[in-house]
Amino acid sequence: MSINIETFFLDPNAEGTLQSRIQQMVAQGILEGRFRRGERLPSSRKMAVHLGVSRITVTLAYTELVADDYLVSRGRSGYFVSDNAPEPPAFPARRFGAGTVDWNRAIAQRHSPGLSLKKPSDWASYRYPFIYGQADKTLFDSANWRLCALQALGMRDFAAMTSDLYDGDDPQLIEFIARQTLPRRGILANTDEILVTMGAQNALWLSAQVLLNSRRHAAIEDPCYPALRNILTQSRCQLHNISVDSDGLPPDALPHETDVVFTTPSHQCPTTATMPLHRRRALLERADADDFLIVEDDYEFEMSFLKSPSPSLKSLDQNGRVIYVGSFSKSLFPGLRLGYLVGPEPFIREARALRASVLRHPPGHIQRTVSYYLSLGHYDALVRRMSKAYHERRKVMDAALEKNQLTVAGEGAYGGSSVWLRAPDGIDATQLAETLRADGVLIEAGAPFFANPQGHSAYFRLAYSSISSGRIAEGVDLVARAIRSYQKNGRPHIASASA
Amino acid sequence: MSINIETFFLDPNAEGTLQSRIQQMVAQGILEGRFRRGERLPSSRKMAVHLGVSRITVTLAYTELVADDYLVSRGRSGYFVSDNAPEPPAFPARRFGAGTVDWNRAIAQRHSPGLSLKKPSDWASYRYPFIYGQADKTLFDSANWRLCALQALGMRDFAAMTSDLYDGDDPQLIEFIARQTLPRRGILANTDEILVTMGAQNALWLSAQVLLNSRRHAAIEDPCYPALRNILTQSRCQLHNISVDSDGLPPDALPHETDVVFTTPSHQCPTTATMPLHRRRALLERADADDFLIVEDDYEFEMSFLKSPSPSLKSLDQNGRVIYVGSFSKSLFPGLRLGYLVGPEPFIREARALRASVLRHPPGHIQRTVSYYLSLGHYDALVRRMSKAYHERRKVMDAALEKNQLTVAGEGAYGGSSVWLRAPDGIDATQLAETLRADGVLIEAGAPFFANPQGHSAYFRLAYSSISSGRIAEGVDLVARAIRSYQKNGRPHIASASA
Repeated sequence: MSINIETFFLDPNAEGTLQSRIQQMVAQGILEGRFRRGERLPSSRKMAVHLGVSRITVTLAYTELVADDYLVSRGRSGYFVSDNAPEPPAFPARRFGAGTVDWNRAIAQRHSPGLSLKKPSDWASYRYPFIYGQADKTLFDSANWRLCALQALGMRDFAAMTSDLYDGDDPQLIEFIARQTLPRRGILANTDEILVTMGAQNALWLSAQVLLNSRRHAAIEDPCYPALRNILTQSRCQLHNISVDSDGLPPDALPHETDVVFTTPSHQCPTTATMPLHRRRALLERADADDFLIVEDDYEFEMSFLKSPSPSLKSLDQNGRVIYVGSFSKSLFPGLRLGYLVGPEPFIREARALRASVLRHPPGHIQRTVSYYLSLGHYDALVRRMSKAYHERRKVMDAALEKNQLTVAGEGAYGGSSVWLRAPDGIDATQLAETLRADGVLIEAGAPFFANPQGHSAYFRLAYSSISSGRIAEGVDLVARAIRSYQKNGRPHIASASA
Repeated sequence: MSINIETFFLDPNAEGTLQSRIQQMVAQGILEGRFRRGERLPSSRKMAVHLGVSRITVTLAYTELVADDYLVSRGRSGYFVSDNAPEPPAFPARRFGAGTVDWNRAIAQRHSPGLSLKKPSDWASYRYPFIYGQADKTLFDSANWRLCALQALGMRDFAAMTSDLYDGDDPQLIEFIARQTLPRRGILANTDEILVTMGAQNALWLSAQVLLNSRRHAAIEDPCYPALRNILTQSRCQLHNISVDSDGLPPDALPHETDVVFTTPSHQCPTTATMPLHRRRALLERADADDFLIVEDDYEFEMSFLKSPSPSLKSLDQNGRVIYVGSFSKSLFPGLRLGYLVGPEPFIREARALRASVLRHPPGHIQRTVSYYLSLGHYDALVRRMSKAYHERRKVMDAALEKNQLTVAGEGAYGGSSVWLRAPDGIDATQLAETLRADGVLIEAGAPFFANPQGHSAYFRLAYSSISSGRIAEGVDLVARAIRSYQKNGRPHIASASA
């Protein structure tokens, strides 16, 4: 391999003769691991032209570097990094540091995250991954996805892939969402009432930015999706945490000064409760009476394998008070980063202007790929396959939970991909999760979902979206065994050792 | 085609008998254009189960719809939308409107865009597209791009494509940028000093959000990239517009209270000036003396076909004061939405937390595709091919400008992809652009680049990144002719008619 000539720059701040600066430049590249053993240097002639120095200066520098065993000369083939050259360090050397800047002062707005729900990136290597929200290799339809991506890479779609769309979206995707996806949720929308987003995260963030400021009041469910609470905390709005019950968010508990409510009526996150029709009506009536808006995160509505899905809250919205958030993260995969916002045009216009300022638009190729995947019917087939698999896993899960007498605090009446559990009093699920992890079992502690994690340490979530049905019973047995051992010993214990 | 059963919902707010509500549901779908002629309805048995009503109710409703010629019955094949069914409207009916919400009140933060630089989306159909920043089909290496995308779609990269990376990036892409891309700009960075962004737009936005608030002072070049001015205006910082000269931004003109400077030293946007070394040093000295930071947008550094590119400002940065913005939009294509930020770790940590809150991470598949494209050497080959073509076009452009005696206000000494021009006094380039557009010539008026567009109406930009060299001379002739005609008549005139 030849080293690209553009990699070479004479440091204008360096001192010494031209020749010594060239030697230093090459040696430093080797020491920093940028030029590796056996790689060929540019010829002395090319290097001289590139640096604007005489050729003899370069030749003399190369000769010195050969003498120092940084380089070897192979006659007419040129100069190469020597096999005896110093070993590069594991990481390249730093060229700039935090230096003289006081970063505590320089950073004008802090955005460091709160409690994180980060999963181990090697979750797939665990034997019992009761992990939520990652794609299951065994269920995903990679073949058709590849075909659609390939089609979207074709010259016919060159403009769709490569163009700067400014604040626009792929019209083909918008058309499909308007005509096919939304009507299934009971929603009819014009194309100017839809905005494609970088997943539900981006849709929720845009909504919060447009609708809130430090004087506005937002209400969220407690427990809720921690990233949403983080978004609202960053917005500096007045935040009200409303405890949910087995029917989800209780409208009566909303303060009268509420401006925006964030809710998950289809499957409350994380308790999986579905809000019944009478409560949805009551919520919309309160919205009219108190003049507030509702942001509905309709995640996972596709996974309704136990009953027909209930229509979205938005479908009951007569007065344009509901902003609807949809996502392809759960049904396709989260690394796609694709979702959408649906709402009245004045709202969508503002969200679009903000999105354009922040990032312009989601990549064209991804939008077009999804549009093909949807319109060729692969999406529906995938959702059916996933629903069937989840249904089977859920049955195994329910049986295993019952057998082990674990306390179910919530499980979706329509389906979903997880069960919300409560360990016996005195057990800290965070510690439980750590213990189980050492035993190959991944569960999610529930405390980070709560506004006040203290007092809610016994909750945890078991998802069945990424674990095969054959592993579920064994995995739940291990969870139950760890709980029993914890109760007996008053502290977490490696489950297998206590068996 | 069968109509998916999930599309059907009984409106819980509707009145009347079950049968009439079913009829209404079907008829409305047809009238709204969701169910189209020849499409098959679910069987009465399936529909009854889905809606939770008796089968006879569905059958009676279907029979009525047949009588009304919404549907036809084809015996055992089932019910289909009739070929005589009413024509659907061009757009689906609205189901929700702006309703009772006062959107002027409800929108807490406005983000509507300022002057836009939107290009016509059908620019490729113009005969003389002197348009900036869109990909050229004739130069782009679609075959190898497809191969890399296909490789990144493989099962070996399933996790890289599908995973939720939270606040993370593709380690393979970061590694390549650190080891190969940045050293060519004289920059050595650790992996925790690099953040992948949704293009340069997103990198600039993140920088502004982290470093500015309403009390901080930002300085920008005048003229400059209008989207950047928009980002800074939205940030509500104290904004200082600094007029550039033929060497770019003059450090002496910066006010002492400056906190952050946004600059384009390699190619000033839009004048294409390159900042000379002595001025770069002076800028860094001012940064130390007045304790400010510099955000360097190093766009288009790849297109240096006239001279070796000068190293980046960041490469001279001893004290960690420069934040570097790179982008693949110009060298690959803007629809990719991929760029990167390089800076001291405390800054990158904050920008990463903010990016995670706004959108989590750029899509995994795109990051991996670029990483293959770079590491297999296709990127270098593409840049060489583009540089060669741009060089040839530039020569034709220079000759045509000279022949027509047009006033060049700036053209990159290192290369680039555009020339900055000034029409004679009294000519409004916005009107000139409109006139020329009717004649198949696309040019960009320069006024939107200025803080105060008034007084700068004579400037315009001619890019040669998307026009073949064979069209350039003719196109420039048309521009010159339109200018002469404008001067003669005191108003814009269709060039061809005045020829």
